[in-house]
Amino acid sequence: MPYTLQQLSDLEDIRTLKHRYFRAIDTADKAVLEPLFTDDISVEYRGGEYLVRLQGKETMLDFLLTSFHSDAVAMHQGHMPEITFTGDDTAEGIWYLEDIFVDLGRNDVTIGSAIYKDRYVRQDGSWKIARTEYDRIMEIVEPIRPEMKITQHYLAKVGRKPHERTDISHAITWFEAA
Amino acid sequence: MPYTLQQLSDLEDIRTLKHRYFRAIDTADKAVLEPLFTDDISVEYRGGEYLVRLQGKETMLDFLLTSFHSDAVAMHQGHMPEITFTGDDTAEGIWYLEDIFVDLGRNDVTIGSAIYKDRYVRQDGSWKIARTEYDRIMEIVEPIRPEMKITQHYLAKVGRKPHERTDISHAITWFEAA
Amino acid sequence: MPYTLQQLSDLEDIRTLKHRYFRAIDTADKAVLEPLFTDDISVEYRGGEYLVRLQGKETMLDFLLTSFHSDAVAMHQGHMPEITFTGDDTAEGIWYLEDIFVDLGRNDVTIGSAIYKDRYVRQDGSWKIARTEYDRIMEIVEPIRPEMKITQHYLAKVGRKPHERTDISHAITWFEAA
Repeated sequence: MPYTLQQLSDLEDIRTLKHRYFRAIDTADKAVLEPLFTDDISVEYRGGEYLVRLQGKETMLDFLLTSFHSDAVAMHQGHMPEITFTGDDTAEGIWYLEDIFVDLGRNDVTIGSAIYKDRYVRQDGSWKIARTEYDRIMEIVEPIRPEMKITQHYLAKVGRKPHERTDISHAITWFEAA
Repeated sequence: MPYTLQQLSDLEDIRTLKHRYFRAIDTADKAVLEPLFTDDISVEYRGGEYLVRLQGKETMLDFLLTSFHSDAVAMHQGHMPEITFTGDDTAEGIWYLEDIFVDLGRNDVTIGSAIYKDRYVRQDGSWKIARTEYDRIMEIVEPIRPEMKITQHYLAKVGRKPHERTDISHAITWFEAA
Repeated sequence: MPYTLQQLSDLEDIRTLKHRYFRAIDTADKAVLEPLFTDDISVEYRGGEYLVRLQGKETMLDFLLTSFHSDAVAMHQGHMPEITFTGDDTAEGIWYLEDIFVDLGRNDVTIGSAIYKDRYVRQDGSWKIARTEYDRIMEIVEPIRPEMKITQHYLAKVGRKPHERTDISHAITWFEAA
């Protein structure tokens, strides 16, 4: 049975929701991020060297804007959605992330991938992310090479400066990779 | 003339078919892979240092699960589909791959891209890959740098261990790049 | 209000237009590129070390085919479209680029990302790019490492050889990154 017109339209909106999310984190754009989440969004990221667990839109915004700070050179792109409807106003999505993250403070470069499992819900006519989690598939960390010349770094301009960052240690556990 | 509702729905299904394929190879997920191919799928990958030619679903599964083994740190993401219908139940697709492949046995890292040309067919109501081929556009191989710390490596857990791998040498020819 | 069938169909066509663009630049395919632009396309790329400004389809084709030359090992992939209709035959699009560009003449590797803002228009039944601009989000330049072995390099075969390249200096300004 083919998708209905409404479902095809919803697929477009759900994809755009997530596309906007990735663009907004790499450009520290709070105004774009804010309407993308439900008030009680729940998050769990199982990384190679970290575990992130948090709940609630305000905590999520704070976590994102502090993580994508002015010393981060960041690219996060989500690909290849597999979206399934679980009701008229609910859906689930699988996405495959590629990310590059240069941390000028920690002096390292991370190249990684992850598979997201999301839940979406329509509220007042707009799709929002209600739950998001991922498992890292690949994560490689390496010191910045002295030969690397950073010729553009957008977050340096718009990301939170050290004194603007908040304490997000309650949301993140760092550990040594196995 | 715009696409019909059925065609728009089919475009969603064909994209999801290929998205699932890429996720499944990097996670060595045989249960996800198995229904994606026709029984007589034919394959040709024209790489920089290899040529792969094979036929049949069982050979394909064996080739994939042995290639994406427990010593491979792999990311394969297919992008930017250009899909054309050639009938009610047949279609062709062009995709643009980016891949990263760290081989801990060979001690090298490959970063590459390729352009796929696929043929899809609907069988018993489900779209399947009947033919897939690609040409490498870019392929760069380099030894693993000692500073690279692999902090997540999903295939180490789920990929075939050395004694589980099968002989796939009939499907692949290695050669020196020109 | 959901998208109409016509709009859903147009979304497919606009995406395919841009997908084709990226495939065609990395394969120096003039026949594929030519119908993608309006005659008076206007372009502005704000890179880390360059500013490109040009107008007109012939100038654009010349710029692209000279930039993606036989000494370039190039991957340009556009992701995560956010498309908005501004009329029956006009639309705007945001895309998120990832690119790798190895310049064998300059002996350097650029890894970057950028956010595109495009305008599309339907002319004689086909969507075309009328305006395209981007801002670099991340740009990292580094010398080629002697260990890097280029095992596939498609543009070496099809890209413009030195004597075929034209003077595109009127379109591009190089500067030192801040």
